[in-house]
Amino acid sequence: MLAGQNNTIATNQHEASLNQARELRQLARNGSFNGSTSGFASGLAQGNIVILPKAWADDFLVFCQRNPVACPLLAVSAPGEPLLETLGEDIDIRTDIPEYHVFRHGKLTEKTNDIRDLWWDDMVTFVLGCSFSFEDALMRAGISLRNIDCQSNVSMYRTNIPVESSEHFGGTMVVSMRPFKPADAIRAVQITTRYPKSHGAPVHLGHPSMIGIDDISAPDFGDAVPIHDDEIPVFWACGVTPQVAIANAKPPIAITHAPGKMLVTDIASEQLSVL
Amino acid sequence: MLAGQNNTIATNQHEASLNQARELRQLARNGSFNGSTSGFASGLAQGNIVILPKAWADDFLVFCQRNPVACPLLAVSAPGEPLLETLGEDIDIRTDIPEYHVFRHGKLTEKTNDIRDLWWDDMVTFVLGCSFSFEDALMRAGISLRNIDCQSNVSMYRTNIPVESSEHFGGTMVVSMRPFKPADAIRAVQITTRYPKSHGAPVHLGHPSMIGIDDISAPDFGDAVPIHDDEIPVFWACGVTPQVAIANAKPPIAITHAPGKMLVTDIASEQLSVL
Repeated sequence: MLAGQNNTIATNQHEASLNQARELRQLARNGSFNGSTSGFASGLAQGNIVILPKAWADDFLVFCQRNPVACPLLAVSAPGEPLLETLGEDIDIRTDIPEYHVFRHGKLTEKTNDIRDLWWDDMVTFVLGCSFSFEDALMRAGISLRNIDCQSNVSMYRTNIPVESSEHFGGTMVVSMRPFKPADAIRAVQITTRYPKSHGAPVHLGHPSMIGIDDISAPDFGDAVPIHDDEIPVFWACGVTPQVAIANAKPPIAITHAPGKMLVTDIASEQLSVL
Repeated sequence: MLAGQNNTIATNQHEASLNQARELRQLARNGSFNGSTSGFASGLAQGNIVILPKAWADDFLVFCQRNPVACPLLAVSAPGEPLLETLGEDIDIRTDIPEYHVFRHGKLTEKTNDIRDLWWDDMVTFVLGCSFSFEDALMRAGISLRNIDCQSNVSMYRTNIPVESSEHFGGTMVVSMRPFKPADAIRAVQITTRYPKSHGAPVHLGHPSMIGIDDISAPDFGDAVPIHDDEIPVFWACGVTPQVAIANAKPPIAITHAPGKMLVTDIASEQLSVL
């Protein structure tokens, strides 16, 4: 194969992913897609969403600054601005997520696919990097991912790992888990270290009980996946962590994505990588 | 503290390590030191040694090329040349190792601290990087090492991991093991990745039985160390691997260092690091 052809294929793949990202956001917008976004739009960054009134947003920004592994910021909107121009073409955060969770005074009260009727003019949107963004890099390294193979949502767990509190937000870390053979786990540490905006390297591996996970077969969010005898569970900080912090802070309203159902951006993950 | 003072301290530390390396080689040379070199001459690279007649050396070089993780080459001498000028001041490979193992037709027949009477004019020396070189980087990152804390030799094990054979040399990999808490194990993967000439990243973690280690409390070389309940064993390729290959190849004579008793060079490990 000629080098030029190779470049053409890479360009075509990027174009295909951009098209898929835009199509997926359109489908979410018109209510035709409400599933997990894992495995979609290969090579493009995905984001966790937190939407708060301005009165709570400033303190949440401090919380993110103090917890950059769980809450790596990709974008913060101006108050009331629903379009996220820095992250992609025609992204309207009020409609383009497959499913939203609405929290009132810290309690999950509604699940919806459209928050236009909940929007008001000082809502601030936070977009936090997501581990789905590095799954692609793992697969390109020949490492298979159980959640992708099982076509299920990644397994997520509450832990006993404390986060750094801000004035109102605090609590413990939520993690995502992927099982790997030991050699692949080592490779996964190396690869994900390159993606600090996608939670970076794992925070734990091997002993779930040490981080407060008593039953690995019963995730708190997402789906359970089988872990084989020759595998070890590897845990990354997860962007669902703010949902625990919101439950503790009890703002009058907070809107998030549903776990595993992310904002798919137009930004290449490699654009956010280091080294 | 002034920046200038800091630089002075770093320079002084390097000078102190150089002095310690040279003193340690002198003590080995006059028969006054025959212990493990782990923890000595902080910041300087240590090396595994293989000495073979020229007729076997060419094939061993192929073996090293095919197994760069177990056998990262730091130097190959000219036939008959006992001085290793590229690795340090006044290094005589015939006297400067704390203890040598002599293999005849693949069998360990003698242990000695001086091989001048075994030397002849076509002996070729191979120096292979050693995991002791990165122990220092781990300690600088605040990670404690059980073998250093216990003042014992690192634990080494035969495994079932096959190596790539050359014409005569082949067999299975020997690994060194260090136990860590999971977060430190992750950090250790990151740090040791920077040192490919010291075996680089681990080859395994977590499940000793998967790599053919049935009893972790009974290492094949070096000393046993305790592994606590909240720790996982992490395994690196080890420069003792050639000693297994020599047992299989059965050259008329081969001389190595005794496991854990290395050549301490004048080369800074950081000079051999990547990224």
